[in-house]
Amino acid sequence: MAFTLAEIAARFGGRTVGEPGILIRQVGTLARAGEGEIAFLANPRYRPQLASTRASAVIVGPDAESLTALPRIVCDQPYVYFARVAQLLNPAAVARGGVHAQASVAPDAQVDDSARIDAGAIVEAGAIIGRACWIGAGSVIGGGVVLGEGCRIHASVVIYAGCRVGARAIIHSGAVIGADGFGFARDGERWIKIPQIGRVVIGDDVEIGAGTTIDRGAIDDTVIEDGVKLDNQIQIGHNCHVGAHTAMAGFSGLAGSVRLGRRCTLGAGAMVLGHLSVCDDTQISADTVVSRSIERPGTYTGMFPFSDHRAWGRNTAVVRHLAELVERVRRLERQLQEKETKHG
Amino acid sequence: MAFTLAEIAARFGGRTVGEPGILIRQVGTLARAGEGEIAFLANPRYRPQLASTRASAVIVGPDAESLTALPRIVCDQPYVYFARVAQLLNPAAVARGGVHAQASVAPDAQVDDSARIDAGAIVEAGAIIGRACWIGAGSVIGGGVVLGEGCRIHASVVIYAGCRVGARAIIHSGAVIGADGFGFARDGERWIKIPQIGRVVIGDDVEIGAGTTIDRGAIDDTVIEDGVKLDNQIQIGHNCHVGAHTAMAGFSGLAGSVRLGRRCTLGAGAMVLGHLSVCDDTQISADTVVSRSIERPGTYTGMFPFSDHRAWGRNTAVVRHLAELVERVRRLERQLQEKETKHG
Amino acid sequence: MAFTLAEIAARFGGRTVGEPGILIRQVGTLARAGEGEIAFLANPRYRPQLASTRASAVIVGPDAESLTALPRIVCDQPYVYFARVAQLLNPAAVARGGVHAQASVAPDAQVDDSARIDAGAIVEAGAIIGRACWIGAGSVIGGGVVLGEGCRIHASVVIYAGCRVGARAIIHSGAVIGADGFGFARDGERWIKIPQIGRVVIGDDVEIGAGTTIDRGAIDDTVIEDGVKLDNQIQIGHNCHVGAHTAMAGFSGLAGSVRLGRRCTLGAGAMVLGHLSVCDDTQISADTVVSRSIERPGTYTGMFPFSDHRAWGRNTAVVRHLAELVERVRRLERQLQEKETKHG
Repeated sequence: MAFTLAEIAARFGGRTVGEPGILIRQVGTLARAGEGEIAFLANPRYRPQLASTRASAVIVGPDAESLTALPRIVCDQPYVYFARVAQLLNPAAVARGGVHAQASVAPDAQVDDSARIDAGAIVEAGAIIGRACWIGAGSVIGGGVVLGEGCRIHASVVIYAGCRVGARAIIHSGAVIGADGFGFARDGERWIKIPQIGRVVIGDDVEIGAGTTIDRGAIDDTVIEDGVKLDNQIQIGHNCHVGAHTAMAGFSGLAGSVRLGRRCTLGAGAMVLGHLSVCDDTQISADTVVSRSIERPGTYTGMFPFSDHRAWGRNTAVVRHLAELVERVRRLERQLQEKETKHG
Repeated sequence: MAFTLAEIAARFGGRTVGEPGILIRQVGTLARAGEGEIAFLANPRYRPQLASTRASAVIVGPDAESLTALPRIVCDQPYVYFARVAQLLNPAAVARGGVHAQASVAPDAQVDDSARIDAGAIVEAGAIIGRACWIGAGSVIGGGVVLGEGCRIHASVVIYAGCRVGARAIIHSGAVIGADGFGFARDGERWIKIPQIGRVVIGDDVEIGAGTTIDRGAIDDTVIEDGVKLDNQIQIGHNCHVGAHTAMAGFSGLAGSVRLGRRCTLGAGAMVLGHLSVCDDTQISADTVVSRSIERPGTYTGMFPFSDHRAWGRNTAVVRHLAELVERVRRLERQLQEKETKHG
Repeated sequence: MAFTLAEIAARFGGRTVGEPGILIRQVGTLARAGEGEIAFLANPRYRPQLASTRASAVIVGPDAESLTALPRIVCDQPYVYFARVAQLLNPAAVARGGVHAQASVAPDAQVDDSARIDAGAIVEAGAIIGRACWIGAGSVIGGGVVLGEGCRIHASVVIYAGCRVGARAIIHSGAVIGADGFGFARDGERWIKIPQIGRVVIGDDVEIGAGTTIDRGAIDDTVIEDGVKLDNQIQIGHNCHVGAHTAMAGFSGLAGSVRLGRRCTLGAGAMVLGHLSVCDDTQISADTVVSRSIERPGTYTGMFPFSDHRAWGRNTAVVRHLAELVERVRRLERQLQEKETKHG
């Protein structure tokens, strides 16, 4: 599969500069691309690499158009443009429908003829597998689960009974959808389990990373809206509601009953505590714990700065006594005020 | 399955107010419950919902008895009461015993006739599966593992060879029990692996969340006592000892050889560093790292507060120079002291 | 299997003191070892246990030689020595080659005759499984994956298509190697997926813990060099490069495109943010977020100290106003300066 620069521009727009007939077979990085590969410049810090790249062509913004003599496509959003070219040159594998002899499909499950079920995969009673789905090896689709069309469930995914997944989901290995939420009532020293009878309901075009867990609702459902992108090892507690097109980075999490808005981003290791809500268009920085609701869009941060161990030791020793430090400053202010009054 | 309010009160105690013959089929939330459903009020913040709920009945404490005209059960612990009603109306599925044709059970494993082994599950040599256990699809029960009666092992759980699990455990998908602890001795630049020959020994009535990992002991065992509840994606290092009825929230963890007391709680993302001990009845808040042993029960916290990004930037710039700030305050105190002495 | 103290010393060096013919069958801890077991003292805090241990022999450093009358081996690095003795007494199980009847091996996969493939394991098209490998139950080895000799892949591991693993790897259950990196370009409110076409390439003698995820590269590869040891539930983002003999503790992680040096250690929960580099021989403490590149070896820390909840409340209230506190101190300094000038 290969396309000329002109063909690419005809498909995705932008303006070609230099030889339009050059043939592109693959994408590459400025640092490592070679013949037949197209690279891109989106981050100004990589400008120096533009001079030395051995790519056959590059995708650049108008500001960088004159920084290279290579055949190039000039466009407004080089990274988005690159994404489209990368998809063009690397189309998702199309599975041929069929159930592997070593898969296990319950007699009353409905598997579309165009769907593929790999070896060791298990589809339990009453599940409905949509058109062109591909269930990877060893995955378990619980009873009554409904998968929309074109879902790619990689190997060793578990979807518990009753959950629903929209069209074109991509779910990576080790993800667990629909396990019980962490719901217990304390009675003396013992914990009494509260049956978790809600479901997980996932919209269209959602991607879920490896090892990510999304718990089913306690009573009502846990909801993931359209276009949400979840990285690896994320935890979504029961009854959370994640707004459309929100993206969460690795290790981030939501405790129970969190309402997270649309188009939000959570950095790596960020967390929202239980029963809070975060409004649309909010950015939470890495390692930040949101401990009260956020009602105004913006960027919020709570990461403790690191330093060399000795400096850290000196500074955090003060942290343990900050309230006293404030008291000392207050006393100084009083004393000076008294002096002012006395001596003028 | 349905019960009248009177039948419920006869079973679990409490006092009915209003029509005792009303029929209850399911639990619900104040916000969403409908006809035939019973809701509860445990948290005062949800009081406003009590006025507008469409539930057929509610469970309330004595303080809220007069806040609604709905048929109600008045009791001391509405949340505990609700848990019992929810269990009554949603009994755990009872599996019919039997080994699925696509499961794999080693010839010398002992599987009780009443146990159910699902498709793709694997029971290795010498394992003993107790009465009424249910092993989900694709789970792997290692050689010589012993499971007490009534365990529910969901799909895709792994229990390594030699581990023991008490009665009525619930273990969710992706959990891994008994992998090697992280034990290496450094020899020059290389790491020499220390064989991990201990086991994981788990008591009765323990629940373990999706993706949680509990490492086997290096030499002695890792021990989880009765009634412990672990949320998703928790990590328990080798040779830890977790006291009875302790509960740990998602992403929390114990490094190696931690001794955690009875009836403790760890909030989301909380962590106890290696070789430390935490006494009974201790609450560790979310995102708190316990870096020295705790000998007195209470609540401990170490979460860095978040704020809007700009304010955070200003404040953390100071954090990096706190020791200097203290020095400046000290100098001011000295100067003022000298002035006092000089000018009186 | 048993060895005399003299035989052990002949094999690994060190000096025996006391009865050299005493027979050692197993290792143990000072606290719990019994007859036929050898314990060790590496950490001075356990010295009191040396007096009371019931071990048959101990491994000690020269400084502790005279603290016990037990038969002993005196050596320079007791912990390393102990590791070697533990390996001697607990050799890794040797698998007999063969493919289980309930495994699934693609016709064109190459599985060495000496390799063992357990029940429910799946080896996809074109994979190459080296000499003496052992693939645990339910693991999935993707198409074209290459495993070097002597790899121990435990149950329920997933290795995505095209990845490479060197010799003698140990990979624990729930680990996922080669899932897609988190790569999306934002176009309006939607995210456009960037195909992840790089691989994961892992060197020799690497150990990977339970539930750990290593993403494939976006374009170029993600690389894990020789001798790296990864604990449980670690996340390595796409295009990271981890230098040889680096060790990472549980919950630690690298965002995308991080370059981590050789012989580094990351404590539990430590994290390096995207596109940063950390030089060789760097120690990152637990719970530390590295937010800029590190160019000088040493120990770096950024953990917020915990305290009892009330003290924490008082101190963090100040944290939110640190910039103002600095301003107050600055004002005091100015005022005092003016007084100096005025009054002398």
